[in-house]
Amino acid sequence: MTYYNLGIRRETSADIATRWLPEVSRRLPDGCDGGLVFSFGVNDTTIEQSQCRVFFDNSVKNANQILTVAKGLFPVLMVSPPPIADQEQNIRTAELSQQFTEVCRQLYIPYLDVFRPLQASRVWMDEVAAYDGAHPSSSGYSQMAELVQSWQAWQSWFT
Amino acid sequence: MTYYNLGIRRETSADIATRWLPEVSRRLPDGCDGGLVFSFGVNDTTIEQSQCRVFFDNSVKNANQILTVAKGLFPVLMVSPPPIADQEQNIRTAELSQQFTEVCRQLYIPYLDVFRPLQASRVWMDEVAAYDGAHPSSSGYSQMAELVQSWQAWQSWFT
Repeated sequence: MTYYNLGIRRETSADIATRWLPEVSRRLPDGCDGGLVFSFGVNDTTIEQSQCRVFFDNSVKNANQILTVAKGLFPVLMVSPPPIADQEQNIRTAELSQQFTEVCRQLYIPYLDVFRPLQASRVWMDEVAAYDGAHPSSSGYSQMAELVQSWQAWQSWFT
Repeated sequence: MTYYNLGIRRETSADIATRWLPEVSRRLPDGCDGGLVFSFGVNDTTIEQSQCRVFFDNSVKNANQILTVAKGLFPVLMVSPPPIADQEQNIRTAELSQQFTEVCRQLYIPYLDVFRPLQASRVWMDEVAAYDGAHPSSSGYSQMAELVQSWQAWQSWFT
C-alpha cells in the first residue's frame, strides 16, 4: 500500500478545489484500488485583513463541489478540521465542521469529527499552544491518528 | 521548515517533467525560502514490452530540461537513482547516473551518487531483495538518508 500526503500549508478549501483532482489523478491511476481522505477548513476560518480567508458559504460550496466530484471517482472519507489555540477561530471552525457534517450526510460520505475530542484533549490543546498555535507535537498527532484508526469507516477500507 | 515528498510510484523522468513545476509552484510560493531535491531514473531503466520505459537519450534530455528550468527558480540538488535487486537493470541505471553526473556538472547542480555506496551495502541490497526487489526496509532507508545528511551540498542549506 502506498499513501500520499497532499496537504499544503496555508491552503484553504478554495485552493484545494483547484488542484486536488489533477494531483490525485496522477497518483491513483486506473486499475489502482485507491481512496481519498479529505480534511480542510482551519485555513478557511483564519482572519486576514479583517475577514475570513474564505467566507463560510464558500467553504461549504467548495466542500460540496470537491466531495461530489471525488465520490464519483473513488471511495471518499472526510475528517473534520481540528481545533487550534485561537478560541475565537475555534468557534468558527466548529460551525464550519457542523456544516461539513451535513454536506457529508447528504452525499453519504463518512465524516469523522475530531474537533470535539481534540478540543477536550489537554495533550492536543497544550501542544498546539506550545508549538506554533496551530500544530501539535508528536503526542497530539498520535491522538488524532488514534481517532482515525478507531473509526469504523476507515477500518472498513482494510478489511 | 516544511518538506513535501512528491515522489509517485512508477513515474519516469518523462512523467516528472510534466508535473513537477505546477506541483512545486503550489508548495513553494513567492517569498518562501524553498529548495528542490530531485531523484529519478530507476523507472526509466525498467524493461517493459522488450524495451526501456524511457530511452537513455530521452532520460538525459528530460533531466536536462527539468534541471535547467528548476535551477532558474530555486536552489536545486540531485540525488542519483539507487540500485535495485535486478543486476541487469542496475547496469543501465549506473550508466544513466553517470550521464546525470555530467548533466549536473554542466548546470552547476550538486549531484550525490548514492548508487555506488548502496550497491556496496549489504544492508541495502539484502533488504531490497527481501522486500519487493526495488525498495528496502527501514535500515536501508536509513543508510540512504545518512548519505544525504552527510552531503556537504545538503548541509549547506541549513547553515
